[in-house]
Amino acid sequence: MSQIEVLKAALDKEIAQHPYGLSPVELYEPIQYLMDLQGKRLRPLLTLLSVSLFSDNWKEALQPAHAVEVFHNFTLMHDDIMDNAPVRRGSPTVHMKWNENTAILSGDVMLVKAYELFLNLPADMLPEVLRRFSRTAAEVCEGQQLDMNFETARRVSIADYIEMIRLKTSVLLGFALELGALIGRADRECTKKLYEAGVNMGLGFQLMDDLLDVYGDPEKFGKQVGGDIISNKKTYLYLKALELGGQEVREELTALFSGIPADGSGKIKKVTGIYNDLNIKEITGRLIESYFDKAIEAIGSLPVDDDRKQQLLTFIVYLMNRDR
Amino acid sequence: MSQIEVLKAALDKEIAQHPYGLSPVELYEPIQYLMDLQGKRLRPLLTLLSVSLFSDNWKEALQPAHAVEVFHNFTLMHDDIMDNAPVRRGSPTVHMKWNENTAILSGDVMLVKAYELFLNLPADMLPEVLRRFSRTAAEVCEGQQLDMNFETARRVSIADYIEMIRLKTSVLLGFALELGALIGRADRECTKKLYEAGVNMGLGFQLMDDLLDVYGDPEKFGKQVGGDIISNKKTYLYLKALELGGQEVREELTALFSGIPADGSGKIKKVTGIYNDLNIKEITGRLIESYFDKAIEAIGSLPVDDDRKQQLLTFIVYLMNRDR
Repeated sequence: MSQIEVLKAALDKEIAQHPYGLSPVELYEPIQYLMDLQGKRLRPLLTLLSVSLFSDNWKEALQPAHAVEVFHNFTLMHDDIMDNAPVRRGSPTVHMKWNENTAILSGDVMLVKAYELFLNLPADMLPEVLRRFSRTAAEVCEGQQLDMNFETARRVSIADYIEMIRLKTSVLLGFALELGALIGRADRECTKKLYEAGVNMGLGFQLMDDLLDVYGDPEKFGKQVGGDIISNKKTYLYLKALELGGQEVREELTALFSGIPADGSGKIKKVTGIYNDLNIKEITGRLIESYFDKAIEAIGSLPVDDDRKQQLLTFIVYLMNRDR
Repeated sequence: MSQIEVLKAALDKEIAQHPYGLSPVELYEPIQYLMDLQGKRLRPLLTLLSVSLFSDNWKEALQPAHAVEVFHNFTLMHDDIMDNAPVRRGSPTVHMKWNENTAILSGDVMLVKAYELFLNLPADMLPEVLRRFSRTAAEVCEGQQLDMNFETARRVSIADYIEMIRLKTSVLLGFALELGALIGRADRECTKKLYEAGVNMGLGFQLMDDLLDVYGDPEKFGKQVGGDIISNKKTYLYLKALELGGQEVREELTALFSGIPADGSGKIKKVTGIYNDLNIKEITGRLIESYFDKAIEAIGSLPVDDDRKQQLLTFIVYLMNRDR
C-alpha cells in the first residue's frame, strides 16, 4: 500500500469504529447514514497528509481529521434542507429519507460531535485549534448565507462571488491543512502557508466545478451537464460573461437567467454559445490554474524535506486533474 | 444592590457587549434579536452563583456563563422551527419573522459561538469543561428527539417521560451549576453534587410547568391555562392519571387526547375533573417537592461557608416559589 492508502485505510477505520450515539435511534441513524455514504473524505486526508509533513505520528491526528469530516457532513445535512436538495451522493438526502426536523436535529448533534472529536488533543494546543475551527465553522455558515442571498440579489460582483465561495467551501480546506500543521507543531509561518494553500486549492476546485458544469464530459461528470445554467445559478462563468459582454449580451443573459424553461437544452445551448463567444472557458481555466499554482507554490516553499512534501503534492495534483 | 443584582448586571453587560458577528446581517441579526428578547437568564446566573461558592473571581465565569445562555437560545431557535411555534417571549419566533432557512443557519452559528465563548478559560480546564458541555448538548438534542417521538407514541411510561424532561431541560441546569464548580476548581464530589442539584431542580421546574398549565392562576401564568390539554401533550399529569385511573377513565382520557376539539374549554373541564378525582394535583405537588428537596439538600451538604451557600439557596427558593 502507498502511504496515502495507509492513511485512507486508517481514516476509514477510525470513522467506521466511532459510535456517534445509540439512543434515540431517530437522532443517530441519520448521522450514520450520511457518514456511511462515504464521499471522498478529501478534507480529513488533507489533515493527515499535512501533519505528516512535520511528524511521523499522524495517528494523533485521526480523531481531529474525523472531526473535520463530521463537520463537513453536518454542513451538507443542513445545506440540503435549505437548498431543497433531494439527492446526495446518489442517495436520498436525510430530510427526504426522514424529515426536516430530523435533519435539523441530527445535524445539530453532528456539530457537537465534531467538537467532541477534538477534545483528546493535548490541552495546550486545544484553545488555538478550537478557535481556528470555530472561526472556520462560522465562516462556512456565512458563505452559505451569502450563497442564499445571491439567489435573489440583482447584482453580484465577481469579487462578491469569490468571497462567497472562499467562505462556503475554501476556508474548510484551508483549515484541514492548517489543522495538520497545528497538530504537527509547525511554526506560524508554515501553518499560515498551509492555510493559504488550502484556501487557494478550494477556490480552484470550486471554479473547476463551475467550469465542468458547462464544459465537463457528461460521461465523467457526476451531475447533469448544464445544471447550473438551468437553475440560474450565478457562477463565475455567468458573472464573467456579464462583465465582458456588451449591453446586448448582458440583456440576453439576464433574460435567459430569469426563468426556468420547460425545455432546458435550448437554454443551455444559447448560454454556452455566449460563453464560447467570450472565451469564458479559457479565462476560467487560467484563473483556476493561477489558484492551483499559488497552492502548489506555498507547499513547495515549506522548509521541510522534499520527500514529505511529495505525498501531499502528488495527492493535490491528482485531485486537480480529475474530471470529478 | 444585592450580590445577585450585581451578578445579573454584569451578565447583562457581558451579553450586550459581545458582538456575535456583523456580516452577512441576515445571519447575525436573528441571533441578536433572540438574545435581546432577554428571558430570565436563569442558567448563566446559576453558573455565576455556583462559581461564587468557591471563588470570589466570578468574573472569569462571565464568558462561559454567556456561552450557556447562547446555547440555550440556540436550542430555542431550532426547537421553535420543529415545534412550529409562532411566538417566543411575546415576540415572533425567528423562523416566523424571517424564515426557516435563516433560523436553521443562525442557530448553527449560535452553537459555534457558544463553544467560542468557552475558549478563554484556562487551557488546563478546557477539555473537561468542553467534554461536559458537549455531552450535555447532545443530551438536550436527545431529549428534544424523545419529546417529538412521544407525540406519536402509543404508550409513554412515566419513567420515559421523566427521562425525556431530564434530557431536554434538566441536564442543562445541571451543567450550569457544574460549570461554576469546574471554574471554581471545586473537587469532584462538590462538582457532582452541584450537577445533581441542577438536574433535580430542573425536573422540579418542568413538573411545575406541567402543573401550572392546569392549576395555575390565569392572571399570573404566562401562557394559556389548559394549553397542554388542548394540544394533547402527554405531561406527567396525564400519564399519572392514566396509571391511576381504572379502565373506564383510561379509555375516556385516551379518547379526549385523540383530537383537537373546536371548543377547548369543555375538554379542559372534563380532563381537569378526572385529574381532580385522582388527586393528581397533590401527587404532582409532592413529586415536585421531593425533587426540590433533593436539590436543596445537595447544596446544603456542600463543604463551603453557609454565607456562600445562602445566595444560591435564596435564588433557588425564589425560583421555586414563583407562579412563573
